[in-house]
Amino acid sequence: MSIATHPPARIGDRLEDIDTPALIVDLDAFEHNLDRMAAMLAPTGARLRAHAKTHKCAVIARQQIARGAVGQCCQKVGEAEALAWGGVPDILVSNEVVGRGKLLRLASLNRLARVGVCVDDPAQVDAIEAAAAEIGVRIETLVEIDVGAARCGVPAGEGAGEGAVPLARRIAASKHLSFGGLQAYHGSAQHYRTHEERRAAIGKATDATAATVEALKRAGLACRIVGGAGTGTFEFEAASGVYDEIQAGSYVFMDADYGRNLDAAGQPISTFRQSLFVLATVMSAPAKDRAVLDAGHKAVAVDSGLPLVWGQHGLNADIAFVGASDEHGKLKLGPDAPRLGLGEKVKLVPGHCDPTVNLHDWYVGVRAGRVEQLWPITARGAMR
Amino acid sequence: MSIATHPPARIGDRLEDIDTPALIVDLDAFEHNLDRMAAMLAPTGARLRAHAKTHKCAVIARQQIARGAVGQCCQKVGEAEALAWGGVPDILVSNEVVGRGKLLRLASLNRLARVGVCVDDPAQVDAIEAAAAEIGVRIETLVEIDVGAARCGVPAGEGAGEGAVPLARRIAASKHLSFGGLQAYHGSAQHYRTHEERRAAIGKATDATAATVEALKRAGLACRIVGGAGTGTFEFEAASGVYDEIQAGSYVFMDADYGRNLDAAGQPISTFRQSLFVLATVMSAPAKDRAVLDAGHKAVAVDSGLPLVWGQHGLNADIAFVGASDEHGKLKLGPDAPRLGLGEKVKLVPGHCDPTVNLHDWYVGVRAGRVEQLWPITARGAMR
Repeated sequence: MSIATHPPARIGDRLEDIDTPALIVDLDAFEHNLDRMAAMLAPTGARLRAHAKTHKCAVIARQQIARGAVGQCCQKVGEAEALAWGGVPDILVSNEVVGRGKLLRLASLNRLARVGVCVDDPAQVDAIEAAAAEIGVRIETLVEIDVGAARCGVPAGEGAGEGAVPLARRIAASKHLSFGGLQAYHGSAQHYRTHEERRAAIGKATDATAATVEALKRAGLACRIVGGAGTGTFEFEAASGVYDEIQAGSYVFMDADYGRNLDAAGQPISTFRQSLFVLATVMSAPAKDRAVLDAGHKAVAVDSGLPLVWGQHGLNADIAFVGASDEHGKLKLGPDAPRLGLGEKVKLVPGHCDPTVNLHDWYVGVRAGRVEQLWPITARGAMR
Repeated sequence: MSIATHPPARIGDRLEDIDTPALIVDLDAFEHNLDRMAAMLAPTGARLRAHAKTHKCAVIARQQIARGAVGQCCQKVGEAEALAWGGVPDILVSNEVVGRGKLLRLASLNRLARVGVCVDDPAQVDAIEAAAAEIGVRIETLVEIDVGAARCGVPAGEGAGEGAVPLARRIAASKHLSFGGLQAYHGSAQHYRTHEERRAAIGKATDATAATVEALKRAGLACRIVGGAGTGTFEFEAASGVYDEIQAGSYVFMDADYGRNLDAAGQPISTFRQSLFVLATVMSAPAKDRAVLDAGHKAVAVDSGLPLVWGQHGLNADIAFVGASDEHGKLKLGPDAPRLGLGEKVKLVPGHCDPTVNLHDWYVGVRAGRVEQLWPITARGAMR
């Protein structure tokens, strides 16, 4: 796995020297976020298995592990490869993996690292068993339950008798598999705007998960892992006494969409700091109230809305990013905003961090206005 | 420039053998589109300078040139590098390029190929002149005029006296630059849904462009290139007698968004065939009316809407793609659709072809159900 484009900066460069568009990480904010998550989880007893689908970078994974994370989770075998090759010893593919080719890769990777996987169908148990037997490894396999997202997963709670329990039994009875526990992630709840909506959704998910754990226990099946949660809801899962692994990913970077989540007092949540930006350059300034950046939606993902403009110490309310085409970002300057000149640099807060990262090959780590780190995004494009 | 991920197929593979998600090209439909565009432009006298921002691949560029295209246009210096390094001799960066580093790359590339560029600001004329002088090359430079998109470009038509004319004069007076003509692209008009809306918008753009050409002529400045147009409107520009270079890109692939454009009779336009698909696999089938694909918005861009599901010979109306998360695509099966099983392959028509291509490293060219070609997308991620 090589990196296709050269880095947009050199160590020691000033911010103004960085070629754009570039994905930059404010290292102070990033480290604050790593420390904050470690500190918040410590008293709960829940372990952090940080989600690498966000950062796609073994260098970041190892910093999370150095602060106490038990390992990583990810969504694709290709991501697991990039992590294992980059020195991560404990990985869970928190997703179904279908197809003999992918399963053989997953199995063989277990010679380098512990790499578990999820299932929601008995045919998949047999397919994973066959791959594990062919390579001669043992694969930890979790049952994914649907706790409200209506995406993958067998029914949880009352439905466990027909869904999770027989599936877990089938895993436990497979010679090359060990039953690892439950994958119980509620994706959509991460972005419910109010504290109360998120609390209610995770309350239901926790009840369903607890009932499933109980049903498995009655069947003699113990869960080593009960995993789920994301940046929007992890405090509820961590406090639940049911979940014991937290799979938050976005907390390392944050984004405009998470910035719209509100806390119990109705205020924007400020637990984590914005550390990820797309640095762009003004390439055209054809009107007093308009400037055009060299970053469009091939540089900053727009699936969760347009990016926001960052000022010196927070969002810049005088400049609105009003339109993204493939390679252009259009800014509308408010009446109080100074006119932007050609070549000026603008920091954008991505609408959604994960798919934005996936557009780039390098993180440019910045501290005190200088480039301090260049980290390769080795799982960029690792969608298989 | 290397390719970071290995190809998802081998030559000779059947469709079922392709690892997913994968970007596949129906070679018969693709070649039909290339031939059709060549045939449509031939009687108009307008030249094709196909847009490489769509395909990002020198292999495809050379097939367009083999059928009569004069060259390529693109939006970024990095794209121009991938094209020139891949054997394309005539390139126009149909966009502004700001910053000394990028301009030196642009200048040096002119040793390998003709690589022109656009300006909409006098400071940029001087910056390009300085780079050309430093490298010792001559750079063809076009003036971008705003013909209705309100993005980049100086005023066209009546405003030409203050905008385009002095800018063109400044280019012509620069020792290492030659004045190349006008860049007059109306991006938003490509997606106006009715024939009449597109006709009216391009009518206005053509009038403004003609007036600008005339004003330049009076100032003694001849345009070698009057370029613009896209897949949605090129018939108007090609017939205008004003535009002489057509910059269509998407016509090689098409997408769901272009599929919503209507012809003069109010019917979906059928000039070009859908040739680009994201091949995905069913990875979970947890309910009778639901299936989950292994392709989310990291595999298929959603900036212009969700993908559509393709059937044997056209769109499959019984299956709706109802939601994309990062790595999952959720399908809702209609009452008449047969249930989709784990491992089944599904062809998706991307909502927007350009940014979808930019997520992938390889085209898998398919003919008669077999993989015939593997082409590297060498300008994937070339955003600088």
